[in-house]
Amino acid sequence: MALYTKSGILFLLMLLAFSCDESDSSKKNLKLASERPSLILTSKGVANIRANLGSIPLFDKALKKTKAEVDAEIENGIEVPIPKDYSGGYTHEQHKKNFFVMQKAGALYQILDDGKYAKFVKDMLIQYAKMYPTLPVHPKPRSYARGKLFWQCLNDSNWLVYASQAYDCIYDYLSSEERNKLETELFRPFADFISRGNPQFFNRVHNHSTWGNVAVGMIALAMDDDSLLQRALYGLKDVKMDANMKDNDGGFINKDGKIGFFANLDEPFSPDGYFTEGPYYQRYASYPFLIFAQALENKKPELRVLQYKDSVLLKSVTALINLSDADGDFFLLNDAQKGMSYYSSALVAAVDIAYHFGGNNPELLSIAQKQGEVTLDDAGLAVALGVKEVKAEPFIKKSIELSDGPEGDQGAVGIIRSGDLELVCKYTAHGLSHGHYDKLSYSLFDEGDEVVQDYGLARFVNIEQKGGGNYLKENKTWAKQTISHNTLVQNETSHFKGKYDIGSMHHSQQYLFSCEDENLQVVSAKEGNAYPGTELHRTMVVIKDKAFENPYVLDIMRVTSDSFNQYDLPFYYLGHIMQTSFEYSKLATPEILGSKNGYQHLYKEAAATTDGVNIKLNWLLNNKFYTYSAVTSPNDEVILARIGANDPEYNLRNEPTLILRKKNAKDALFVSTIESHGTYSPVSESAVNAYGNIKTISVFYNSKEYTAVQIEMKDETKKLFIISNQNNDKNTEHELTINNKEYTWKGPYKLIENI
Amino acid sequence: MALYTKSGILFLLMLLAFSCDESDSSKKNLKLASERPSLILTSKGVANIRANLGSIPLFDKALKKTKAEVDAEIENGIEVPIPKDYSGGYTHEQHKKNFFVMQKAGALYQILDDGKYAKFVKDMLIQYAKMYPTLPVHPKPRSYARGKLFWQCLNDSNWLVYASQAYDCIYDYLSSEERNKLETELFRPFADFISRGNPQFFNRVHNHSTWGNVAVGMIALAMDDDSLLQRALYGLKDVKMDANMKDNDGGFINKDGKIGFFANLDEPFSPDGYFTEGPYYQRYASYPFLIFAQALENKKPELRVLQYKDSVLLKSVTALINLSDADGDFFLLNDAQKGMSYYSSALVAAVDIAYHFGGNNPELLSIAQKQGEVTLDDAGLAVALGVKEVKAEPFIKKSIELSDGPEGDQGAVGIIRSGDLELVCKYTAHGLSHGHYDKLSYSLFDEGDEVVQDYGLARFVNIEQKGGGNYLKENKTWAKQTISHNTLVQNETSHFKGKYDIGSMHHSQQYLFSCEDENLQVVSAKEGNAYPGTELHRTMVVIKDKAFENPYVLDIMRVTSDSFNQYDLPFYYLGHIMQTSFEYSKLATPEILGSKNGYQHLYKEAAATTDGVNIKLNWLLNNKFYTYSAVTSPNDEVILARIGANDPEYNLRNEPTLILRKKNAKDALFVSTIESHGTYSPVSESAVNAYGNIKTISVFYNSKEYTAVQIEMKDETKKLFIISNQNNDKNTEHELTINNKEYTWKGPYKLIENI
Repeated sequence: MALYTKSGILFLLMLLAFSCDESDSSKKNLKLASERPSLILTSKGVANIRANLGSIPLFDKALKKTKAEVDAEIENGIEVPIPKDYSGGYTHEQHKKNFFVMQKAGALYQILDDGKYAKFVKDMLIQYAKMYPTLPVHPKPRSYARGKLFWQCLNDSNWLVYASQAYDCIYDYLSSEERNKLETELFRPFADFISRGNPQFFNRVHNHSTWGNVAVGMIALAMDDDSLLQRALYGLKDVKMDANMKDNDGGFINKDGKIGFFANLDEPFSPDGYFTEGPYYQRYASYPFLIFAQALENKKPELRVLQYKDSVLLKSVTALINLSDADGDFFLLNDAQKGMSYYSSALVAAVDIAYHFGGNNPELLSIAQKQGEVTLDDAGLAVALGVKEVKAEPFIKKSIELSDGPEGDQGAVGIIRSGDLELVCKYTAHGLSHGHYDKLSYSLFDEGDEVVQDYGLARFVNIEQKGGGNYLKENKTWAKQTISHNTLVQNETSHFKGKYDIGSMHHSQQYLFSCEDENLQVVSAKEGNAYPGTELHRTMVVIKDKAFENPYVLDIMRVTSDSFNQYDLPFYYLGHIMQTSFEYSKLATPEILGSKNGYQHLYKEAAATTDGVNIKLNWLLNNKFYTYSAVTSPNDEVILARIGANDPEYNLRNEPTLILRKKNAKDALFVSTIESHGTYSPVSESAVNAYGNIKTISVFYNSKEYTAVQIEMKDETKKLFIISNQNNDKNTEHELTINNKEYTWKGPYKLIENI
Repeated sequence: MALYTKSGILFLLMLLAFSCDESDSSKKNLKLASERPSLILTSKGVANIRANLGSIPLFDKALKKTKAEVDAEIENGIEVPIPKDYSGGYTHEQHKKNFFVMQKAGALYQILDDGKYAKFVKDMLIQYAKMYPTLPVHPKPRSYARGKLFWQCLNDSNWLVYASQAYDCIYDYLSSEERNKLETELFRPFADFISRGNPQFFNRVHNHSTWGNVAVGMIALAMDDDSLLQRALYGLKDVKMDANMKDNDGGFINKDGKIGFFANLDEPFSPDGYFTEGPYYQRYASYPFLIFAQALENKKPELRVLQYKDSVLLKSVTALINLSDADGDFFLLNDAQKGMSYYSSALVAAVDIAYHFGGNNPELLSIAQKQGEVTLDDAGLAVALGVKEVKAEPFIKKSIELSDGPEGDQGAVGIIRSGDLELVCKYTAHGLSHGHYDKLSYSLFDEGDEVVQDYGLARFVNIEQKGGGNYLKENKTWAKQTISHNTLVQNETSHFKGKYDIGSMHHSQQYLFSCEDENLQVVSAKEGNAYPGTELHRTMVVIKDKAFENPYVLDIMRVTSDSFNQYDLPFYYLGHIMQTSFEYSKLATPEILGSKNGYQHLYKEAAATTDGVNIKLNWLLNNKFYTYSAVTSPNDEVILARIGANDPEYNLRNEPTLILRKKNAKDALFVSTIESHGTYSPVSESAVNAYGNIKTISVFYNSKEYTAVQIEMKDETKKLFIISNQNNDKNTEHELTINNKEYTWKGPYKLIENI
């Protein structure tokens, strides 16, 4: 009987319609009968959600949390201040809060069918509609594309992406006069300003313009404005821009003339779903990409955007999860703040959308379970139902290579996982304006903790005390420079001279990636453009030896050059030195290591000259013991250094590095191993396996064609790893005689046990 | 029917005896009927354990783990090597493992009634009995009291404490010939060597001799040798020693002539159960103290050792738990390695014993639950039963003052707990040879994390790479020096000139400790001997203001002197500087701050000269924001420094400090506040309350009699804290006119709101 309310009857009819007849025509009729919401929530989805409420724990929990949050905001009252601050400041944070809350209130209105939420959204939008036409460009001047509500169009676009969803949710609640007012006085001018008003922002291939395109596209869909949608999808036509113009980060505005949402899908994503800027920015971009895809899927399914480029958007979600460590924190590639993870709200949405629209991959459910949250929409419902129905399966992260470049032929990221170790090797393209100059660099994680680190970025995002939470100058002078990474520096100069114009033209060459044998995984790549006339070839091998608790890493960096140079190979271990095998002289006071290219930020603390035997560094981190062993030549220099010089405002972290330096060398071979071998308990005060298992590593053979490294263990067993330097064909048979002994094998490399 | 086995009948009879008649005479008969085990396990206890096995989860789990461990050792076979190594080396670790395993195997024999465990113990003891008579003193020369199995008698004593328990457990399993052999060829000579053979080790008040006394006492009880027991309890009589002799740590061997177990109870423990060396060493000593007390309670209940000195041993266990942070890690007072906690096996035994023999305090059960372990004896059974019967109650750690000194009149440790903060103030006696020169120092914890740290010790216990795991020379040159602590240094010289002979003669004076009002907790103490002619008076106040999320700390360090001096007050914050309110010049390269007394280990990184307004330091640690504010006078110097100079082997941690320096001052007043006010999320990238709530602190009034500090909040409300500097009587009425306004109050201090 309670159903015989007006909306109740409709609701009942809808349910009947679904259960009795799922044919296309009935769907279409239904859609017409109840068009809104239609963007992210759909009328059908709302019905399903309402029908399941109270029995879908993940969704119910998210709803409860959101309701509490929005109720508190309604209680506080609406604040729409005149814009004036940078991020971290009051007006910035208030407008940011407003768009998040509006989107949530819109969803609550639909799900709970309570008019107070619609009224809240309406009242707030009306206030914006009153203020917006009066606004000049934002008073803060730092951006190349200043917004109106915020200091940059990027944040204005964020606002519109969320406001569009709120508008769609309350569309039917508004009178046509109200809709007309909002559309003509707020949304359309807003969309015009961030597009026509800022073509240097809108017409790019960049995460900024992705947000811009999507903002325009979302409001276009919400208003059913097809011409605006075309602008979003294909860019602003007939706008001429200087191809050499750059943004604040030093990136080209638009070198290739590619524009619009589809171009932003074409260009930065590789066919494997890797986003060229790196996982930190992929996470940031994933929200607009996926939320717009979801809206298009709902309103313009004929565009088949999720199937575009062999379903690259769906692939991008699993790629991103694979780009996280054991704790879900993203690997640091290019500009990236530590601690960002798949617990970010952008990833909650991404995982839900990928599950719902991507064939219900049960592994995504286990990520959603860890996230402990779902979005309040059709996708979130699907995930909550899947979890409730115990469909989740573990998302097992394996070794994987993710190609870079629109066609997947601009290098790659190679991730080797073995035991608790995760080795991340970078041989990609530059990564647009957020790229770092660190070809063939790597980082190493153990149980989700960084052991050999990538510095990340020099920025404290949204911490106002630190330069307004924006990029600090040390990002350019330190974090982007080659010496701040675990890769080779020639003559104290960064790769590509640290110049974006050059770096963005090149990428490294994948040589091989092999993870079929879990006891012997190999990644190898070459870089010939970082230093013209010099070729770098790095091979990293992760070997699992049954005799030892953990796998270990073998690193072979081979340098060939047509000139004599100084080569520095830094090793950014994290932790406390326990012991070194070599004698070093600690300086009375640290000296600055160099004058530029990042060297000015390093303090030299100690130095040693090698006598040609292995050097070993044994250190302790998080109560685990590690050992680095490296082959040296007589008179190589070892520098123990620390980050922090020329840092007048304490913007840098004072972390250590070991630099192995070869002077006046033409060709050079750097060979080292990294072992994770022991543990310490401060409670039982016992040290277990405090020393490594490797006794000596040595170069057994080295020619243009082959490099062979011998590893001798403490138990005196010996292994030999041979790699073919010029032929990576899997089926080629090789023969090599070393010290009168003949070695034969098939394929580019071979590990010979017990030689 | 299954009970009609031989042991079954006995078992049944025993149960009947207990259930029918609990009178003393029946107990006595029973004891006579089955004398062994009698030390830690008792025959009655064994019966109870056997009766409950399988239904006492904590005990069953411990038993299973122990069985697996001992079974593996039995499988491996017995190894009793000729002693030759320091700790960390093979023979040391093997003998150490042996005594642990023997003790466990003995318990397993009793509990599981399986002869293989008794045989294992017997075989191992026989091997020791064969080897021991042939052993010279240990070849490693570093100790003032070299052992035979180990490099120091301390470890030999460890061995005997555990071996005695094993011997008691298999006593009845052995033939009288076997017992005779073990007693005459192993145990008696062993006990004689660590006592008569090493009076400088045995006749002391020190944790070393506690172990020595207990080792002799335990084997005396196991062998029923009353004269040996007398030696343990009251020391070696008729031994003359030089009163000025010192041990390796620089502590006096025996200045007062006090000897034996009871002296070791009398001297280092205060009536509150605080152990003068500090919680790290209290934890180490607690095992022999409590295990011997348990054995005496079982075999010599007439000694009433647990009731001795108003039950000081039982009190010591709760004192020790109170000396741990929110995570159970012990506060750092004197020599102490970070990370040691009540999860240590010594504390498992201590908690179990204190529960079983100390009136079944249900709060101890919740600690046992966290430990997740119990000892395999009567005490462990009692705890496992208590937990099973859901008797556990939370152990709520409150603010507490723990007096120091045998009579409790040698200063104290004051711990103030408020919200998530724990403030630890040290105004104790010296702490024997492990004491640091840091009168009136403090450390601060937030949710169990150190925020303002005490450095701890310069040692990596049992990590062989670092000086054999022993004390490093930097312990003396850095960790013990005053400048390495959060307290005042006069003229770059440590308290008591850093001399043990002087420091050990003095203690600070408690002035007041008040924690009745949870919104206003105060600790105050004075030190007049650290620098003759200078008096230090420090008052620390923890204020909980309803307007703010967290409590904050007010620190008033008042210095009065009869001469002009330089005063340095270091502030060892942990974390990354976000912002300072003052301009500082960072040096191009760090300089060494001083030449001695710990200053030689500090790098000066930056400096500022103050203009008399507050200085503020805002920093980030573990994603929390903190702010330190301090009153300054014009031309005070601020030094930003870092630990690590003159550290040729990287033995120190490179952590920061801020030093506020007043030059050429006679009297001085250092006033500062510490706020924990905000959080940062690297996942949502949002900073909440990144700035502190305090606008300005200022000295409102300062005379010989009174000091008044005004705190002005950002909302412009003002508070005034007044303390009487010379009268700490609770009932005295005070009147003070400041700026024509009269303030009256009762007792030593007053906080006036909204002035």
